[in-house]
Amino acid sequence: MQARQALDLLSLQEKYQKSQLSPTELIESLYPDITGIDAEGVWTYLVPKMNLLNRADELETLDVEDRQSLPLWGVPFSVKDCIDIADLPTSCACDRFTYTAKATNPVVQALLDAGGILVGKTNLDQFATGVVGVRTDFGIPRNPFNADYIPGGSSSGAAVSVARQFVSFAIGTDTGGSGRVPAALNNLVGLKPTRGLLSTRHTIPACRTLDCVSIFALNVADAAEVFEVAKGFDPLDPFSRPAPSAEADKSVDAFTFGVPAEEYLQFHGNQDVEARFREAIARLIDLGGTCKTIDYAPLLEATNLLFKGTWIAERYASVGRFVEENPEAVHPAVRTAVLNSKSLSAVQVFEDQYKLASIRRAIAPMWEEIDVLIVPTIGTAYTIAEVEANPVDLNLKLGYYTNFVNLLDLAAIAVPNGFQSNGVPCGISLIGRAFSEPYLIQLGAKFTN
Amino acid sequence: MQARQALDLLSLQEKYQKSQLSPTELIESLYPDITGIDAEGVWTYLVPKMNLLNRADELETLDVEDRQSLPLWGVPFSVKDCIDIADLPTSCACDRFTYTAKATNPVVQALLDAGGILVGKTNLDQFATGVVGVRTDFGIPRNPFNADYIPGGSSSGAAVSVARQFVSFAIGTDTGGSGRVPAALNNLVGLKPTRGLLSTRHTIPACRTLDCVSIFALNVADAAEVFEVAKGFDPLDPFSRPAPSAEADKSVDAFTFGVPAEEYLQFHGNQDVEARFREAIARLIDLGGTCKTIDYAPLLEATNLLFKGTWIAERYASVGRFVEENPEAVHPAVRTAVLNSKSLSAVQVFEDQYKLASIRRAIAPMWEEIDVLIVPTIGTAYTIAEVEANPVDLNLKLGYYTNFVNLLDLAAIAVPNGFQSNGVPCGISLIGRAFSEPYLIQLGAKFTN
Repeated sequence: MQARQALDLLSLQEKYQKSQLSPTELIESLYPDITGIDAEGVWTYLVPKMNLLNRADELETLDVEDRQSLPLWGVPFSVKDCIDIADLPTSCACDRFTYTAKATNPVVQALLDAGGILVGKTNLDQFATGVVGVRTDFGIPRNPFNADYIPGGSSSGAAVSVARQFVSFAIGTDTGGSGRVPAALNNLVGLKPTRGLLSTRHTIPACRTLDCVSIFALNVADAAEVFEVAKGFDPLDPFSRPAPSAEADKSVDAFTFGVPAEEYLQFHGNQDVEARFREAIARLIDLGGTCKTIDYAPLLEATNLLFKGTWIAERYASVGRFVEENPEAVHPAVRTAVLNSKSLSAVQVFEDQYKLASIRRAIAPMWEEIDVLIVPTIGTAYTIAEVEANPVDLNLKLGYYTNFVNLLDLAAIAVPNGFQSNGVPCGISLIGRAFSEPYLIQLGAKFTN
Repeated sequence: MQARQALDLLSLQEKYQKSQLSPTELIESLYPDITGIDAEGVWTYLVPKMNLLNRADELETLDVEDRQSLPLWGVPFSVKDCIDIADLPTSCACDRFTYTAKATNPVVQALLDAGGILVGKTNLDQFATGVVGVRTDFGIPRNPFNADYIPGGSSSGAAVSVARQFVSFAIGTDTGGSGRVPAALNNLVGLKPTRGLLSTRHTIPACRTLDCVSIFALNVADAAEVFEVAKGFDPLDPFSRPAPSAEADKSVDAFTFGVPAEEYLQFHGNQDVEARFREAIARLIDLGGTCKTIDYAPLLEATNLLFKGTWIAERYASVGRFVEENPEAVHPAVRTAVLNSKSLSAVQVFEDQYKLASIRRAIAPMWEEIDVLIVPTIGTAYTIAEVEANPVDLNLKLGYYTNFVNLLDLAAIAVPNGFQSNGVPCGISLIGRAFSEPYLIQLGAKFTN
């Protein structure tokens, strides 16, 4: 996998500054690839070439000062197709569901306002339900590292669009791992910000109380730069939260990191992923980290609450009526998940919320002992055939290290962590308290540099 | 209504300091009254005289220094009977439900540790369901000001025990108004603190995500003093919250207060309560206040969510099984409310939570314009006969100015506001943002002094 040119922000912006490249030239050089065979299954909607060139032209006609004020001038990006962009179709990867959006999600608007070039909307597990990337009407995006393997989801197309360097970064979403699992499977950085920091207005919710807009990037610095542009309090999104006034940056020279106790580490027999994880721990210790074993039981309890509990009813609240009226138009695994939630009771929701409150309280002391929690992003990788044979169980297994994060109001960054012998990448996730992004970004950069 | 001696903290503590009274003498003088005709319906459990005298003796044998370190030394108080005290019965005003508690609620423990004398446990609307005070197996506590009228609830006995000066203060609870409606009907101060400031551990929940332990007192200073002892983060209560570090006290010399727009003021034809409310507004202006009309629509929407929405399912989560197994042992209005909630769906809960999030966001700008919201605590008062003829509707009407407060994460203090021509008192409520107790207490003191 060799891109025609490196699309990481540093490389791209350097070429722009040295006038070695223009946005128009970029689009021209990109277009064969983003419409080629490697792009199959990536897009649910690709912006027509003419429009891309018009956008490039619009950016090029700005005077120098205006250009310099735009942090993402000429930077190509993609947007997961459960996020509205005015006048473009939103499909949620379900043909029949598709409608033309009337408004633009504020995160996307901020990226456009910062000079970004929207290249297209990307494929996903239908209605962002799943972390596998195979539940779609638009074809399965191929894993760029080994086409037998799933790309991960639900932000499947988002991740592949960045891994293939069709774009510099992608906007995805993350409810139970949709912004991290595909990052691991595509050797990318996946920043899952604290709930409410990036507006979820004008998106089709998965679980509206938990959903986050997330960022896929080629490296940690890029994710951080996009995050700066993307974040912002949105008074029209009831779930938006202002970030608290920034604490003085905590140093990452020395740090304490938690890892799950041995009995909770699950690699499903995948010795490569296990070896990479243990190497990552050794590397973190080399980098000044002190390793502490933490009790993973309460986190696992939260994981079980997410998809075995009542939050799944939020999916019915979001798209239940559509699924009920168009059952044959929806992927069977998605349909079952959405419709089953209809029979859950109000009493069960409150009982789950009591449990969640107890778990949150139970883990609070953990954050006095560690600065960051380190987990494998995924314990193993599955082939498309394996997932199609066992769609529900393997989906649950893939979320083992990701599902609890939003329920417990945490922030996370998934970073690359080497490769398996089959060529499929591995990843680890750095998980911190709400609003710990600056720390996670610093430490993620240190780990990956 | 004339007590044998004033039981407000200032009077009582002065007598103790001057050795004009001892706790033993207090108990001796109180005992005939707290077991007399005026106490009918007040207690679900009265501490035996011998135990009260033992407690008085225990306090008297402390040396002077120890006494002085106890802010509530020798102060009699009562506890609403949905709150556990070890080795005493907890009834929730339902005979068949009664059990002997194994542990003591931390607020009660703090009051005992501060030298308080527990006199008894008080009657309530069964399972704290209702704001009327007539739904009980223990007889209706008589309204001390006009026995035809309801005492208010659910903390009926708590309020009457203070109004009758059987005790200096009472601990109640408040989910939708249970700590404020009875304050209004008994000419008392009712402090409904921010959710989570007073531990709700070892209580029988009404709506566990909303419940507050509350304080009834004879004046604002007493409520404030008890609040200081009662509050505190409880790591074992998942719903406990630490108070943020105190802001510098905001002055109440000048202040802006909001009142509902005219079309939202409801007095149900009660001209006395209306006149008193308008006098209160005039008085607040006299005291340096600027009056602003606010849009009450979103608050009313929250009120409708509480008891017409899905939060009622929390009552089923708390006592549903008991009610289902013992339907004939439960008051019909309570039984219906609890059992009806069983059929509510998980999807509805999430839809309600989305609505609530929108309402919270909608009212946020209001707090930029006003320091405090002023409402009548109740729009009118009902007789026992009226409520028994129309138990559900009148109960809802009584909560019109109180129901929204906990859902919107606000703090409130109900204060006396004169009398109707039938002798029944009126009240107003001062409502502020979460953690605004110091401000509400200052302003409440200013209004009532």
